[in-house]
Amino acid sequence: MEQAPRILSWRNMLVLSLAVNFSLILKIFKSSGGNSLDRTAVSGSSLLSSASCKYSEVEEDDGRILNLKFGDPTVYERYWQETGEATTMVIPGWQSLSYFSDNNNNLCWFLEPELGKEIVRVHQIVGNAVTQDRFIVVGTGSTQLCQAALYALSPHDHSGPINVVSASPYYSSYPLITDYLKSGLYRWGGDAKTYKEEGPYIELVTSPNNPDGFLRQSVVNSSSEGILIHDLAYYWPQYTPITSKADHDVMLFTASKSTGHAGMRIGWALVKDRETARKMTEYIELNTIGVSKDSQLRAAKVLKVVSDSCDSETAKSFFGHSYDAMSKRWKLLKQASKDSKRFTVPDFASQRCNFLGKVFESQPAFAWLKCEEGIVDCERFLREKKKIITKSGKYFGDDQSYVRISMLDRDSTFNIFLKRITSSSSSTL
Amino acid sequence: MEQAPRILSWRNMLVLSLAVNFSLILKIFKSSGGNSLDRTAVSGSSLLSSASCKYSEVEEDDGRILNLKFGDPTVYERYWQETGEATTMVIPGWQSLSYFSDNNNNLCWFLEPELGKEIVRVHQIVGNAVTQDRFIVVGTGSTQLCQAALYALSPHDHSGPINVVSASPYYSSYPLITDYLKSGLYRWGGDAKTYKEEGPYIELVTSPNNPDGFLRQSVVNSSSEGILIHDLAYYWPQYTPITSKADHDVMLFTASKSTGHAGMRIGWALVKDRETARKMTEYIELNTIGVSKDSQLRAAKVLKVVSDSCDSETAKSFFGHSYDAMSKRWKLLKQASKDSKRFTVPDFASQRCNFLGKVFESQPAFAWLKCEEGIVDCERFLREKKKIITKSGKYFGDDQSYVRISMLDRDSTFNIFLKRITSSSSSTL
Repeated sequence: MEQAPRILSWRNMLVLSLAVNFSLILKIFKSSGGNSLDRTAVSGSSLLSSASCKYSEVEEDDGRILNLKFGDPTVYERYWQETGEATTMVIPGWQSLSYFSDNNNNLCWFLEPELGKEIVRVHQIVGNAVTQDRFIVVGTGSTQLCQAALYALSPHDHSGPINVVSASPYYSSYPLITDYLKSGLYRWGGDAKTYKEEGPYIELVTSPNNPDGFLRQSVVNSSSEGILIHDLAYYWPQYTPITSKADHDVMLFTASKSTGHAGMRIGWALVKDRETARKMTEYIELNTIGVSKDSQLRAAKVLKVVSDSCDSETAKSFFGHSYDAMSKRWKLLKQASKDSKRFTVPDFASQRCNFLGKVFESQPAFAWLKCEEGIVDCERFLREKKKIITKSGKYFGDDQSYVRISMLDRDSTFNIFLKRITSSSSSTL
Repeated sequence: MEQAPRILSWRNMLVLSLAVNFSLILKIFKSSGGNSLDRTAVSGSSLLSSASCKYSEVEEDDGRILNLKFGDPTVYERYWQETGEATTMVIPGWQSLSYFSDNNNNLCWFLEPELGKEIVRVHQIVGNAVTQDRFIVVGTGSTQLCQAALYALSPHDHSGPINVVSASPYYSSYPLITDYLKSGLYRWGGDAKTYKEEGPYIELVTSPNNPDGFLRQSVVNSSSEGILIHDLAYYWPQYTPITSKADHDVMLFTASKSTGHAGMRIGWALVKDRETARKMTEYIELNTIGVSKDSQLRAAKVLKVVSDSCDSETAKSFFGHSYDAMSKRWKLLKQASKDSKRFTVPDFASQRCNFLGKVFESQPAFAWLKCEEGIVDCERFLREKKKIITKSGKYFGDDQSYVRISMLDRDSTFNIFLKRITSSSSSTL
């Protein structure tokens, strides 16, 4: 709530005050109880100070299993608890009955105009992607958009399925989402680094990369027949320096990793070519007849608060806050790696971030951790000896000595994780 | 708001009052304007009486194009405006960040428990489907669930794509969603009535049927190798008498047609077999990594209000209201058909509805209208001569003399539609 006084008019105050009362009353008296996330949020928020996160407060290790296999972005819960009232969403029962948006001129007929506006605004403020003369296609997360792009960019003649490749280590979902329907339009073609086939292909370029966090460009050494899809889910200043506006044909983003709202299932694509955007829209129409209007409106509100926080001259922006959180975690992890010598994490080059105005190394959403000291199966070692669930390197087209570990869990989990991997005992119990 | 006083406790009153104030203040002062649906809702609600809809109030025909091609369920907007405050959804900014639901024991890991509970409750109250010992899988609308069911029920060995069939006139999307990815798992096999191939197949049974409204059973005259998916989107008492609890292996429902909230994109499947439910869940995980939590929570709230309205002994239920709306429209349409003699609509047998406790004929969400007097292309005739956009029978595997017309638009549109099709002039301008 640090920046609240500057941006509030009397009517905002009134709305905010009512929203606070309403949500608190709901929380306190709601007889149905809600889910545990609700309860955590309420009990947590009353304990929160406006000071930065205290990562040095190591939690008591109760011996529970730590699941760091997924990139569940609960690290952001704290920020949204602190500034959450400004993003409280109120949806009356009669709103969004229609399949359609009030958006007749837009190629993506189910895009809520307010969301389209806030997507453009946040990219302009952060400077991480070109939005001018681009079509916006909204999706149920960027996973749906990736499939929409495959559908749109594959040849629909009888030339057979086009190969889809990505350089290892690649996002473990790519082979799965390419092949699960045994499509005649596209098929998984494996590691882009060793791909040698003639003819057209699609290369998925994730930058910063999931799982290892490195910045990437296309790698296939080929003629001009490669079609590129850029997955830029992590090209935000909390993860990596923003050095220029990304300017590719198809760029995918998601609320899950930018603002941390994975449960909303909202992603967006910035698309240069009209026909590609039209076919991506067609895919989403056939697949799910559009995208939840409730979540689109909520995403618009969340992005607006993020942009407002960046426009503020006195308070720290959302990205400033989340940069600090990631920075502290990575410093601790790197120190732990040095102290322990049993595992390593990647080294990243320093670059200047145009948005934050400072030089720093990438601090990715995942740690691509390598077990040393002759541990062959790192996933098994961490699971059996440390009760830490991770995702093995083998699912990313790489070696079993690697695992991917989420850096986006809540503080308490991260602190126990750090404690366990630096402990020399083989069991933490 | 008729039933409000009976179900309200002091704390509900407090919440309601705050919600009303909050949404009104938001509406009045919101500088960003919102979309036109918002503005319509607000200006409309102040004009609404609690009396039934007045269908005799024929609107002035301004000559605009009427688009009745889609089943956009805006007919329900009036009901939700009248009772909407009870369904106002408030979502704090820190809620639903995680991909996961607090739902560890559920096979469908992204299902919000509150939604699961309300789905069971509404089916038990209406008596339209067996829920005991069924798995619930939530989807981004029933369209995604239909594809999840195809994925789950197709053989995943190398026996080639299984044929998917449905009796004509069939839902026009079925061939499209079966074939758009050229899947090696399944392919469109055409009209179930003329299907003669040996071996396993999947039959899509829509009952009441889209487009013609008739109750249906599987039609393929075959051995026991048929796998059935029942699309029961319209098996609700406003459309057809509820004569028994549907009891099939895979049953699909959607908020779009039951409560009218198409913009939420929420559907659900009731599934008998654990492995089928698991594979449907797997499909949705691969396709969109779950389903919008915001819309799931909102759907739970809407279904709760619907069930509460049915439990009320003094006020009319949601289904009572919507039955009346559909009943009045169908009486007017049938009278118009008799008067005009230029078109016909289907005749339905009367049956007793266990839920509403009365005998009536089906009054479907779509009119399957047949042009008479030698009009070969009904869609073209209505488009060119009446400025009414419909969907031609050819897309449903039937004749061009038929069109499908939505019966779910707002009153003003329906009234102009009626006026135009009964007018003898070839142009309404």
